[in-house]
Amino acid sequence: MLEHGGRLLRAARRHGIAPADWLDLSTGISPFAWPLPAIPTAAWQRLPEDDDGLAGIACSYYGARQVLPIAGTQAAIHALPRLRPRSRVGVLAPGYAEHAHAWRANGHAVETLPAAELLAQAHRFDVIVLIHPNNPAGDLFDRATLLSLQTALAARNGWLVVDEAFIDATPEHSLCDVADRDGLVVLRSVGKFFGLAGARAGFVCAAQALLDALRESLGPWAVAGPTRYALRLALADRDWQARARERLRASSDRLRTLLAVHGLSPTAGCALFQWCRDERANALHEALAARGILTRYFETPASLRFGLPAGDAEFARLGSALREVVA
Amino acid sequence: MLEHGGRLLRAARRHGIAPADWLDLSTGISPFAWPLPAIPTAAWQRLPEDDDGLAGIACSYYGARQVLPIAGTQAAIHALPRLRPRSRVGVLAPGYAEHAHAWRANGHAVETLPAAELLAQAHRFDVIVLIHPNNPAGDLFDRATLLSLQTALAARNGWLVVDEAFIDATPEHSLCDVADRDGLVVLRSVGKFFGLAGARAGFVCAAQALLDALRESLGPWAVAGPTRYALRLALADRDWQARARERLRASSDRLRTLLAVHGLSPTAGCALFQWCRDERANALHEALAARGILTRYFETPASLRFGLPAGDAEFARLGSALREVVA
Repeated sequence: MLEHGGRLLRAARRHGIAPADWLDLSTGISPFAWPLPAIPTAAWQRLPEDDDGLAGIACSYYGARQVLPIAGTQAAIHALPRLRPRSRVGVLAPGYAEHAHAWRANGHAVETLPAAELLAQAHRFDVIVLIHPNNPAGDLFDRATLLSLQTALAARNGWLVVDEAFIDATPEHSLCDVADRDGLVVLRSVGKFFGLAGARAGFVCAAQALLDALRESLGPWAVAGPTRYALRLALADRDWQARARERLRASSDRLRTLLAVHGLSPTAGCALFQWCRDERANALHEALAARGILTRYFETPASLRFGLPAGDAEFARLGSALREVVA
Repeated sequence: MLEHGGRLLRAARRHGIAPADWLDLSTGISPFAWPLPAIPTAAWQRLPEDDDGLAGIACSYYGARQVLPIAGTQAAIHALPRLRPRSRVGVLAPGYAEHAHAWRANGHAVETLPAAELLAQAHRFDVIVLIHPNNPAGDLFDRATLLSLQTALAARNGWLVVDEAFIDATPEHSLCDVADRDGLVVLRSVGKFFGLAGARAGFVCAAQALLDALRESLGPWAVAGPTRYALRLALADRDWQARARERLRASSDRLRTLLAVHGLSPTAGCALFQWCRDERANALHEALAARGILTRYFETPASLRFGLPAGDAEFARLGSALREVVA
């Protein structure tokens, strides 16, 4: 099991700061969460039903022909490697580490490569896993590149897996609309953009045969009833989605500027986080934590990821802390 | 993917009866659900944290040394077969069909046998899967038998898997207290007894090494945040649990009597359902459905399972319908 960010309780104990007193910027989860309605108790009490309308609403939101609701992208990350014989797998790095981990754990031959090398050496792989936009490195890929990569992989029964967990604020970059192509697998998460990371929900967009195999591997009732209820509303809430996109972009710009002002010009970022490569990353992470600000530290390469502060007070708190800790 | 009971929406469409007008007795889920409190929005918005106290509360409720929270028994049923090399697997039948299905789907040599034969031929298997009490057949096993079976299996690196999804009303029959023995795997569900089937939650009790392997296979954040919050309270609510046990036993007795009065003496049952083998099962299922009462029909052997009506009005409705449909 890999270690992950978002371990607020552990940081709280370590630094002797109560959980409620932290500014938690350790995740890429939107601080502007979709406002939850009351959840009917029946959603808790009854087994979830596949034909409750969620799949259709998700198809419309993602622009996909068919989707499979899953209990978070994580469920697909762990299940996909079981659906192929031993393959040569190229995974974007640095990136969300669970991808390479899951393929390795299932006996595949995995290499992790930076974007340029991965694309240049694509012919060496049966499966290529991209995170788009990349987390934490923010890489973006143009659609023509992705589609020609997918075509080449499909010709040898290969897969292009694209983890679009952070794409909702820039949906024009998504491949969901063509995800029924052979060997293309697009993973979407509702945790980040909708700010519902606790709900454990995501969707896989792919050809029907692959979705069927994945569903068989995961078993029935993968997504909780309360989550299905909430998502039927959230994915259909176009007005909220439009406002959230604007707000995220503005906040991410503001965060980039604040970091730059304090000598931490971000190396990359997207609408949901900014990422700073910096030799001092570990020391900065610790100094910020001592002030009750939790960031995500990456050892290789030495870097910090900052999630979005939620408003003026949180931006001011981060600014004050940066003034103190950046020498 | 197997078909399951609880497909109320499909029955509603087929019979032209609105979902709200049904008496749904198709599941073994308690009609006396644990009363949900308000769920804090943070539970929806933040990634669940493993060290939120849930595991300790569950250990106390189950009397186990360690537990792994999972997204419903189903998650373990699908994951366990992946943790063993090809094995000879004996599964109790008739019983919850997902067990045999999952072991077969992972390439194991599976046989399904009635309880007496399965125990008599235990030496032929590396893995034995029991449902205890059995669903739908209600079989009960005595503790000494189970422990000697487990000892014999463990001696050849085998497993005894005991699905205790329906045991909460009779916890004295549970093996959770000895589940850290080598090769013993006990599956618990919160869906039935707590009436929270939509929450998708369960627990595995076993030796730590097996729990670690299972956790690795399922990935992080398997259980939704709102579910973890609710369970921390529900599993600690001893007063409610005691009252629920009494109420379930009384309702199950009343159901057995009602069925017997109408010529459908149950073949077996437990605190959460009654099960009737009857050649007319399919016709009875259809006739009850035409009256808006959904039961669970099993083809082999021809039988019906009745979940518990919730109170006087529902018992009266079932009684009237039985009077009409049982010739």
